[in-house]
This record gives sequence, C-alpha cells and structure tokens, in this order.
Amino acid sequence: MFRPKSGSSARSIRKLSQNEDPAVKSNTIERITDYITNYELPSPCLVLDVDAVEENYKEMASLFPSAKIYYAVKANPAEMLVKRLDQLGSCFDTASPGEFDMCIRLGIAPERISYGNTIKKQADIAYAYAQGIRLFAFDSENELEKIAASAPGSRVYCRILVESGGAEWPLSRKFGCAPEMALELLIKAQGLGLDAYGVSFHVGSQQVNLDRWEPAIAKVAEMFAQAKKQGVNLRLIDMGGGFPTHYRTDVEPIKSYEQKISAAMDKHFGTDLPDIILEPGRSLVGGAGIIQAEVVLISRKSTEEKTRWVYLDIGKFSGLAETMDEAIKYHIVTARDGGPTGPVVLAGPTCDSADIMYEKTHYEMPLDLKEGDKVLILATGAYTTTYSSVNFNGFAPLGIVCI
Amino acid sequence: MFRPKSGSSARSIRKLSQNEDPAVKSNTIERITDYITNYELPSPCLVLDVDAVEENYKEMASLFPSAKIYYAVKANPAEMLVKRLDQLGSCFDTASPGEFDMCIRLGIAPERISYGNTIKKQADIAYAYAQGIRLFAFDSENELEKIAASAPGSRVYCRILVESGGAEWPLSRKFGCAPEMALELLIKAQGLGLDAYGVSFHVGSQQVNLDRWEPAIAKVAEMFAQAKKQGVNLRLIDMGGGFPTHYRTDVEPIKSYEQKISAAMDKHFGTDLPDIILEPGRSLVGGAGIIQAEVVLISRKSTEEKTRWVYLDIGKFSGLAETMDEAIKYHIVTARDGGPTGPVVLAGPTCDSADIMYEKTHYEMPLDLKEGDKVLILATGAYTTTYSSVNFNGFAPLGIVCI
Repeated sequence: MFRPKSGSSARSIRKLSQNEDPAVKSNTIERITDYITNYELPSPCLVLDVDAVEENYKEMASLFPSAKIYYAVKANPAEMLVKRLDQLGSCFDTASPGEFDMCIRLGIAPERISYGNTIKKQADIAYAYAQGIRLFAFDSENELEKIAASAPGSRVYCRILVESGGAEWPLSRKFGCAPEMALELLIKAQGLGLDAYGVSFHVGSQQVNLDRWEPAIAKVAEMFAQAKKQGVNLRLIDMGGGFPTHYRTDVEPIKSYEQKISAAMDKHFGTDLPDIILEPGRSLVGGAGIIQAEVVLISRKSTEEKTRWVYLDIGKFSGLAETMDEAIKYHIVTARDGGPTGPVVLAGPTCDSADIMYEKTHYEMPLDLKEGDKVLILATGAYTTTYSSVNFNGFAPLGIVCI
Repeated sequence: MFRPKSGSSARSIRKLSQNEDPAVKSNTIERITDYITNYELPSPCLVLDVDAVEENYKEMASLFPSAKIYYAVKANPAEMLVKRLDQLGSCFDTASPGEFDMCIRLGIAPERISYGNTIKKQADIAYAYAQGIRLFAFDSENELEKIAASAPGSRVYCRILVESGGAEWPLSRKFGCAPEMALELLIKAQGLGLDAYGVSFHVGSQQVNLDRWEPAIAKVAEMFAQAKKQGVNLRLIDMGGGFPTHYRTDVEPIKSYEQKISAAMDKHFGTDLPDIILEPGRSLVGGAGIIQAEVVLISRKSTEEKTRWVYLDIGKFSGLAETMDEAIKYHIVTARDGGPTGPVVLAGPTCDSADIMYEKTHYEMPLDLKEGDKVLILATGAYTTTYSSVNFNGFAPLGIVCI
C-alpha cells in the first residue's frame, strides 16, 4: 500500500517502542512502530493493529461467555477490522444504512446486525427490513410506530435513561427515555405486533465508575418483572458499551468490570439469565491504534512567555474530535522523550481558532522538540478517522492503514 | 444535476419563501426555494446562491474601494463560487496546499493568492513558492525562518494578537503574537532578505462589537512608525475578516463597519494610507446559503416532559460544527411556521451523545411539526460543508449545490 522507506530517519521513531505505555500493549506498539519504520506513510495517519483488536475481542468474549458481542461499527468501520471481527463470530451494532450496507456487502448475515440508532428515517427502517435486519432500537413512541409500520414483527428493544456520571465522554439525555415510559412502550410494541424483546441502557462512553452498571441492571430486572405481570415477556438486556480504553490515566481492566456486572446480574436475575448484548467499540479498537503525526510549528506568543505552542498536522477537525472540551486526553510520545520537558499548548493545523486540543489540561513536551519531528498519539483506534472533517481548510481526512 | 421533482409535496416548502428573514435576502430565499421546489435533492443538502455572493462581494468592494479583498477560501471552497469571485476580481486567502492548488487549477494567478495560515510545513511553503505564491503570513520566529529558507524574497506579514471579545465565534490565542515581538520579527524578516510587508490582525469571526477595529488599527499605525525608525518600511495592514452574517439576532450592516474602520484609518494613518487587505469569508457566503434538512424524529423523554426533542438528519458532525458550545445560533424555518409553537431541544442523527445543536439556547418549533417535514436552516453558506465529517456513523458528508 505504501512504499518501503529507506534511510535513517526511521531509527529515531524506533526508540518510541521503548516508551512502553499500558495505553497500548507492548507487542502492538512494536508491530505499529515496525510498520511506521519500514513504510513511508502520509502524515497524519492512523495505523491499526487488527491482531490487537482480535486479542481484545477474545478477552471480552471469554470474560462474558453468556453475552453476545455486537461491535459498535461507528467506533471504527475499517473493513479489514470488521472482516476480522466477523471471522471471530462478532455481531454488529450499526447506526445507519451506510454502516449496515457495508456489513452486508462484506458477507455478514443480517441476523447478526442490529440497527441500534434510536433515530431513524422511516425509509431507512423499511430499507433495513428489506435487507433482512430484524433487530431495532427505539426510545420513543413515534420511533416505535415507525418500526411497527416498516419492519413488522421485528424484535425491538427500548433504551432507558440511566446515570452516566463518571464517563469521560459523557452521555447527554439525547438517548433513552424514563423507564416507566419504556415499559408502556414495550407493552404497546407487543400490541403493534412487534416482538418486545427487551431493554437497553448505556452508562456513558469511557466510563471509569464501575458502580454505574448495578443500578441500571436492577432497574431492568424490575422492568422485566413488571412487564411479565402485563403479559409481556422481555428477554434481552443490552448493556451497550462504556468499557474504557487506557488514555493518560489508569483504568481498571475489563475483568474488573466483568466481576461487577456478573455480580449484579446474579443478584437481580439469579439463575434465570436473560439474553445479554454488549456493544463495545472503544474498548476493542481504541488501544489497537496509533496515529503518527508531525510537529508543524513551535512558537511562543511573546518573548516572556514560558509555555510553547506546539502545532501538529492533526487537530480537532481532522481526527481528534474527542478532544472537544478536552474530554479525551491522549498520551502523546516523541522520539526525544526522556530529556527535560516544558509546558505546551497543543493545537491543530487549521486556521480555526477552536482547533486547539489541550490548553487547560497540562501537557509537557521535550524542550528540544523540533518542527518536522514525528509524534505518536497512542490509543487512537476508536472515534478518530470517521469524525475527521471531509476537507476543512483544504486538509484531507485522516488516513488509516490496517496491519 | 438533480432530477426535477413532480407532485405536490413541493408546495408546502414554497410557503417558506414568505417567511422572509433578513438573515437571507428575499430574492435569495426565493431563488433557493424555487430550486428546492423543482429538484429532488438528497437530504441534508446546502443550496448556495452564487448571485447572492456576487452581490455581497460587490457591496464590500464598493464600500472599501482602497482595499484588496482576499476571499477566505476556507469559509466555502465550492468551485463555482471561487470561479465567480475570480471573475469579479477577488484575490484569495488560502490555508493549505489543498486550497491554493484548487485556486491555481481554476486559473487564478498565484499573484492573487496568499498563504495566510501561520502554521505551515516547511515542504508546503517550498511547494507554494514553486507554484508562484509570494505572500505569506507568520506569527513566530520559527515560521519566519521557514519562510526565509523556502520562499526567499517573498512578502511577509506578521499577525498580532488583538482583543476579540464580542465575537460569536471568538478567536483564541492560537494565532498572532505580542505586537512588540511582531515588530522585532518584521525587522528580522528584512534582515533575512524577505520583504517585511506589514501587519495583520483578526478581531474574531462574527464580530458584533464594531469598536474592536479601532484599537487594533491604532496599534498597527504605531508599529509602522516604530519600524520606520529602524529602517523597515511596512506598507500593509491586513484586517482579516470578522464581518458578520445575520443569524438569529440583528447585526449592523457592513456599511456601519466601513464607517468605523474608515474613521480609524483616517485618524491613525491620515492621508498616507497603506495597502489594505480584507479577508471576508462568512460575510460574503454565509447569507447566500440555505441547508435543506429533514425532521427524523420528535420525542419526549417522559410523559410529563413539555420539551420535545427534535432530531434532524443533520447535526454537529455533518455540517453544523459551529453549533459547538451553541456558538452560532441558526435561524430554522419550517413549512408549518405561523401556528402555535413549543420549546424544543435540537439534535443530530448520530449515535453520539455530543451531537446536540441547541439544548441551553431557547428554540421553539411548531407544535404540529412531524417526522419527514422539511426544515430550512438559513444563512448556512459558510463553515458548513467542509467541516462535515467524512463518514461519521456511516452518514455521508453534507452535499452542496451551487445555483
């Protein structure tokens, strides 16, 4: 795909692999830096280690043997990645015709695809149904009626609002409805000839508070009991995603999440476990990718100022959208790490004044950093490429290489 | 480009043209709604009236006869628009090789193009120079040295930091440096064999405080005098953009801005006027465009809640990026306007919880609004299409039709 590189500039990058960081596993760092060392890549570019995604998938599948994993395609829709997950037996949670069309084109059976967006055009529901998709999310009466009209007899699950405090990319109230309303709607769903399959919730992306799951699971168990009394047999609990990727700060291993969730399921469902769906995205692919970027400019705003402004060739509008409000704090390494450092503001290359990644968050970079230096932005496999703007300021969208 | 539409659904849209709003001139609304009525467009889609841009350009050119207008290509790089501005005699301010390559490909002479981004890769400066571009912006010592090395003898101007409070899309400290440092750098520029041409500033995009220009002009005049004493003959004042587009709230006409600026120039430069560059973007194209979008879902989060959530098929990641922090407040009209309305939260179609346009800002929409209704988002000709994400959640980037 890219031509092999010659010369010595590659060697300094090599040092990066010694900068081992738990954000990205050492064998992943090694494979990716090997690739970067040997191939001439455009800058910026995301390099994604599909083997690392496979490891993450297998870990999650073994920790949750009774759950079905629906990979959240929106996290990263790279075809090579989707194909690998397909081979591993994953199902797929899709947000739009663009996403499920791609899955079907890659040979994934529609029975393994959910249309998990609660906001769908009527025509898109009909189209999904025509493609064979039979599992739909909703969180409102109008959406339910659209599904009943255009996807008759399908399985539906209703998303409820739950507490998401503690999530680094927190959920707003955009998705979900009050549990009482959800219960009414599920009963109505059955009346409309749909299969009232169950309930979904999402505790927020990059959720670091492990205690967020239990109250949500308790609420769903309560809804199951209430529904049963009204003759509706709910059988699905869809826990969404929320499992974290390691960025700058330590996070608990997925194993710890599993323990909390299993204990809550035992407590509230006992031996009568319902079907379980998980929709990991970030936790599967985040740590499997590294963006290689370049320092474009280092400057100071006045002669007295201590803080340097470091401008990269990637920014908020070309892949690092999750730095919005400085929410996700990426770990950034350079070949000069190890010596003295000083505080920096990190900004992108566009003429947009909002294109600043970190100004309030304290970042330090080597004092001898230079224009043209490569930087590696770790754990950037999720929510980067597709967020990238199409052509803002004339810059091409972030490229991706799957290895 | 799009096939003519038949049937009657078009008629309801027609009513929109009666909803005259100063945000978009009535003849522009009429031309665009005529087009929307007669052609089947994908949704969402921006329709841009290039004649309206021409009117705006001519107005600005006649108000500022002694200034050169460098259109800020980043505001909207649609080729038909750029070609029209070229025919009208405009020059072009570009941010990247992507932008100036397009201009040159369209036949625009490099003498009429500036490379106005203060953050440039060394290789891109060399490439611009090879293409014949000789006018470069900088705001730091390192950038100046890059230009001296790769674009010898070129004209350079240094951007200074000025007060931008009052701008609805405010500038951060990302661009510009302290005037004292700028002066030193311009003197150094001459020593490096460059033509130290002048000074630029930018008072912030969508600046509604007309008094922001005068102190900046005063500062530049002072720098001219100081530079002269040191043997450097500065001859350019580049005032950037900042002229507003009418969104929801009234703004002063460009004429009022001209009066303030002319008075300040008279006061501080007298009859010895320097070369003047203006870099309008938003004010030329913002009001010339209307996005047609569609209501995907209307819902409530609980049975008690009064506020409806209205989900459109366009959002923060597909063209309305300037709703970030609810900064730019677009005027939105529907064919049902005129009857009773109620409060709404406005959100986009993606599964991203951050994809909400207006939650704190009070918006009302008709109580009888329905899924599938068309909405027109006025004054969206600038900073929409190219900000759009490339494929987030599987949605295609915002399309554009120039008429």
